[in-house]
Amino acid sequence: DEERKRGYAFVVWKDIARWFIVLLIGVITALIAFIIDICIEEFSNIKYEQLKKSVDKYVLLDELYIPYLLWVLSNISIVFVGSMLVAYIEPVAGGSGIPQVKCYLNGVKIPRVVRIKTLFVKAVGVICAVVGGLAGGKEGPMIHCGAVVAAGISQGKSTTFNKDFKVFQYFREDHEKRDFVSGGAAAGVSAAFGAPIGGVLFSLEEGTSFWNQALTWRTFFGTVVSTFTLNFALSAYHGHPGDLSYPGLLNLGKMEPFPFQIYELPVFIIFGVIGGLLGALWNYINFKLAVFRLRYVGEPWLRVVEACLVAAVSATCGFLMMFLLNDCRPLGEDPTKVPLQLFCADGEYNAMAAVWFQTPEASVRSFLHDPMGSYKPGSLVIFVVSYFLLSTWTFGLAVPSGLFIPNLLTGAAWGRLMAIWIQYAIPSMSINPAKYALIGAAAQLGGVVRMTISLTVIIIETTGQISNALPIIVTLVVAKWIGDFFNEGIYDTLIQLAGGPTSPLGTPSTSTQHLCVRIVTYSGFPVVDPPLADENEVTTYKRLRGMILRSQLIVLIQNKIYNENANTTWSNLKVDMNMFRKEYPRYPSIEELDISDWELTCTIDLRPFMNPSPYTLPHRASLPRLFRLFRALGLRHLPIVNDVNEVVGMVTRKDIARYRVWRHRGHMGMEELVLSSEI
Amino acid sequence: DEERKRGYAFVVWKDIARWFIVLLIGVITALIAFIIDICIEEFSNIKYEQLKKSVDKYVLLDELYIPYLLWVLSNISIVFVGSMLVAYIEPVAGGSGIPQVKCYLNGVKIPRVVRIKTLFVKAVGVICAVVGGLAGGKEGPMIHCGAVVAAGISQGKSTTFNKDFKVFQYFREDHEKRDFVSGGAAAGVSAAFGAPIGGVLFSLEEGTSFWNQALTWRTFFGTVVSTFTLNFALSAYHGHPGDLSYPGLLNLGKMEPFPFQIYELPVFIIFGVIGGLLGALWNYINFKLAVFRLRYVGEPWLRVVEACLVAAVSATCGFLMMFLLNDCRPLGEDPTKVPLQLFCADGEYNAMAAVWFQTPEASVRSFLHDPMGSYKPGSLVIFVVSYFLLSTWTFGLAVPSGLFIPNLLTGAAWGRLMAIWIQYAIPSMSINPAKYALIGAAAQLGGVVRMTISLTVIIIETTGQISNALPIIVTLVVAKWIGDFFNEGIYDTLIQLAGGPTSPLGTPSTSTQHLCVRIVTYSGFPVVDPPLADENEVTTYKRLRGMILRSQLIVLIQNKIYNENANTTWSNLKVDMNMFRKEYPRYPSIEELDISDWELTCTIDLRPFMNPSPYTLPHRASLPRLFRLFRALGLRHLPIVNDVNEVVGMVTRKDIARYRVWRHRGHMGMEELVLSSEI
Repeated sequence: DEERKRGYAFVVWKDIARWFIVLLIGVITALIAFIIDICIEEFSNIKYEQLKKSVDKYVLLDELYIPYLLWVLSNISIVFVGSMLVAYIEPVAGGSGIPQVKCYLNGVKIPRVVRIKTLFVKAVGVICAVVGGLAGGKEGPMIHCGAVVAAGISQGKSTTFNKDFKVFQYFREDHEKRDFVSGGAAAGVSAAFGAPIGGVLFSLEEGTSFWNQALTWRTFFGTVVSTFTLNFALSAYHGHPGDLSYPGLLNLGKMEPFPFQIYELPVFIIFGVIGGLLGALWNYINFKLAVFRLRYVGEPWLRVVEACLVAAVSATCGFLMMFLLNDCRPLGEDPTKVPLQLFCADGEYNAMAAVWFQTPEASVRSFLHDPMGSYKPGSLVIFVVSYFLLSTWTFGLAVPSGLFIPNLLTGAAWGRLMAIWIQYAIPSMSINPAKYALIGAAAQLGGVVRMTISLTVIIIETTGQISNALPIIVTLVVAKWIGDFFNEGIYDTLIQLAGGPTSPLGTPSTSTQHLCVRIVTYSGFPVVDPPLADENEVTTYKRLRGMILRSQLIVLIQNKIYNENANTTWSNLKVDMNMFRKEYPRYPSIEELDISDWELTCTIDLRPFMNPSPYTLPHRASLPRLFRLFRALGLRHLPIVNDVNEVVGMVTRKDIARYRVWRHRGHMGMEELVLSSEI
Repeated sequence: DEERKRGYAFVVWKDIARWFIVLLIGVITALIAFIIDICIEEFSNIKYEQLKKSVDKYVLLDELYIPYLLWVLSNISIVFVGSMLVAYIEPVAGGSGIPQVKCYLNGVKIPRVVRIKTLFVKAVGVICAVVGGLAGGKEGPMIHCGAVVAAGISQGKSTTFNKDFKVFQYFREDHEKRDFVSGGAAAGVSAAFGAPIGGVLFSLEEGTSFWNQALTWRTFFGTVVSTFTLNFALSAYHGHPGDLSYPGLLNLGKMEPFPFQIYELPVFIIFGVIGGLLGALWNYINFKLAVFRLRYVGEPWLRVVEACLVAAVSATCGFLMMFLLNDCRPLGEDPTKVPLQLFCADGEYNAMAAVWFQTPEASVRSFLHDPMGSYKPGSLVIFVVSYFLLSTWTFGLAVPSGLFIPNLLTGAAWGRLMAIWIQYAIPSMSINPAKYALIGAAAQLGGVVRMTISLTVIIIETTGQISNALPIIVTLVVAKWIGDFFNEGIYDTLIQLAGGPTSPLGTPSTSTQHLCVRIVTYSGFPVVDPPLADENEVTTYKRLRGMILRSQLIVLIQNKIYNENANTTWSNLKVDMNMFRKEYPRYPSIEELDISDWELTCTIDLRPFMNPSPYTLPHRASLPRLFRLFRALGLRHLPIVNDVNEVVGMVTRKDIARYRVWRHRGHMGMEELVLSSEI
């Protein structure tokens, strides 16, 4: 409507503004990612260097409990900060943020998920979590950060700071905002993994119902800008500004293209099976933990205590492994920054200490690139088991942390283990451990998240080698098949646990909250949403005339657009769009309205505001048909009419989302979800 | 319905069958691509070796007109075969096939586009076109081949051979078939370019309205199988079966990752601008030629003559260039198989002859990989101009040929030219000609086809280097922007020229073709589609009760399911699905029905067959709303109802597709397309 009034120039202006916003989103997301990355790297270096000094000093005195305590204490204190922030300031910033973003993109609004405060807590929290030695990654939180940045910029105002910059007001509607948030999440993926194509595919796979070519292309532009900015910033930080040699944060190091033979296919399939099984187990444990937490660890202080406990356990695990597994290797080509001698002979270092005394990301790199004999199989077995358990315990704590890196690490470790065993079984072959470590990492991650094409592309882009695509794809296909046989991907599991669509804000209710509004525009043609509580006022023909949203009604009442007020004739109603935009997206609730007694008898002419031609469905339509309409059009509520277009009922998204079809272990069925209000 | 009746096992069986069909599609598409590729390569080698011998012989005798005539004649005779096949046997097999497949995937059926006969003509024709020296590629036709293979296998029957294998009958419906065809096209892309991810993105970008994760994943499986099979077959053919070193047919050769500096960005943008301008010009010329052909070159024999003329002109161009541009280079590292000495000194060869005496694909490789000084700038200028014109003339001839390779070749040539000029302008820099040739090729192709993310990924996968992604993306974004300012991508242009949705078959008509069928199930509740021609029979309430398709009506009449026939009580109507499936997709036309006089008074109970709850829209809905519903649900026809659910009209896809919005050169508007019946 507005577009038609303002003509072509307005359309072009809006289009240019969209591209400009995407550019901004890409740049700012990349800069935030850059800051997070640098902080993590620098603080981790300081921490591990101090610890190393302390170990080197006390190992000679046989007082190793001192560095151990130092380690535990530093972990706990750092994690404490992050977890306090999450538990007391912004609980929605906990976890990886991907489930929340996924919910948001699918139209289910979780309160405060795209606020600036959330961004701040998320950024600081993830630095604390990773520096604090938890088995978590920074990639998921970065994706969430991208989404927040996108929401903030595109709306041009911030609720946290209570500021309204009065820019981009034309994008203040659900649909536009959602598109930008999807672009922001893509930019986040792109910055985290250096994967512009993967970012686009991620936002498609997780949030899209439609294929919209213009949007996809703009998103792609955003992801490229994001990768490029990050690359430039990191290159400049490392002293080679024009070089552009740091494409992403999750740098797995350049993999060589590894040739593979056709008889290796079964091996890849076996890796996929293992990955699928382990992933399903990981999800199962994590799910049980999440249920346990929902039930018994509700209090904020309990959540902080749990986070600190995990931090202590992580340090203890690491310390025991370093101490008990005397896995000594000669010093040499290993890229570790702080090799620890511990009980090893001179000129040797402790391999397990090397793995533990760096960020998990660096450990993944070590597993992928170290030569064949770098680790003892025994140490690897213990490492895989303990890290597997630690990571599934960590994910879901009250700190922002992702699951990509820990699962890649677990997978790379067992992949390397498999390589050693294959080498042992067939000594004549020359086995490339990097290949199997990479395949294992992909299989483990695929088994957990069950993302399909986007994960494949992300891994390919991260390793920078497209010629390795086929083994990775085969492994991921198998891992997903196997995993799906048992349960669903971790993100979907968490979303379903939280009951999916629960939104105190924004969902137009069809209930009878409307108190005083008597809609008597035409007594015979009511706007049937909301159905009139007062049946006597209308004739028996309750025909559908249009739909109006609760938020619109509230704004109307707030602005007192009553028929009884003389100035609200049709010609004075030019204000409409801006009136609604000013409040978006946090409309006042019904309780905040100040309604005097005389107003209770007033009427509102809803015709200029209502949607005059809502989509409807006849009452004999089947459920799949209903579902298809909801999904295809992204509806929130749908009036069901009978043969003469009288409203016989309403279906809301909540009604639909309660039911879901499951298919596991050779069975399928439909179950009704219990809706809770937390995620 | 059927699914519910047969229970879970049936659903699983269908799902497994789907995966199996996709596997078959991947394998067979790859094998066809393999055969086409081998034929082109072997025949081309034979042709050019003979020509070379002849040139070597007659150049000494100064009778060069003999090899010239030989060249022209061989070109004409080979192209003649291909063009005869297309012009007289299957006109729909001409061109690249991508517009046709795109139409099909968007629900517009062009007759015979997925028949086996089309596949045969396409495969033989493209071999003739490429061996015949036309400026065309084999990639587009391969995509079309993949689509035909998919349609054939998924339906388990062939109209060309009049065979019905009685398998996969459950997939005989539009929706399933379309999904498989989209997978087949993706497998074709994957085989042609060795680009599994690009193939998936292609099928998404060209054919998808919805994002369907299960379908995407299955498509991805198909593309991987296709790449893998082709790789295996080619490796086996070249003697290293297990090696898997031939990922795709369009092998541009391994590109080295080229480092780039930030100050090179403007250069990439300039390349994008040039590519966009040239692409828009190419499209414009091709469009004018297509209009000319529609008007004056309608007769099959004229089309054959035109193809032969182009073949002769191509040979002449090549010969003149070889003859007049004495671009001699020392023999050495060049990979050409048949270096021609011509007038060059001993130990040297003619660079232009090298370019012309090989398939266009090999020439692209030469431009991308030859060292800096391999070509004179002057020869390149002439080559670019002539090949640009030749390729735009060739695309649209009555032979199957694609536009990827010719445009890559043109672009690589001017990219290399730019590299030479840059080197000349800044002698101190060391310029990598391969980099600029690749960027030029991408820009030119992007300017012509205006595909976005899929083209980017295809180019990245073809060159096997993901680290070159950023320059390619920047170039493609700019090329698309610039090109879109002037006109649309070549495929869309061609589709619009043909008027888009024209389908003599399959579109359920709502007109009054229904002759004798009086729908008097309940006289008061008509199935309002088709609207009753006879108004007297019904009461005034023409309420919508359901929808039925023309094809269903015809089958019903053919099977004489009249109420007057005693055996068609409700309980006997179990046959329904198979009855309809048997005829799919070529239902008999209304004229083929044999209806006796007494049948004209019969009635049919349509209730078991009709769709009882069609989607509808109220008559005051806006056009965007209507459009959104059509696009989102992939509708073909939509009844428009008034407030009491009486049908007031019908909107069909044809009505909608007639209008399109254009935006070029700072204007926008809506135009009504003239519908023709040919593409």
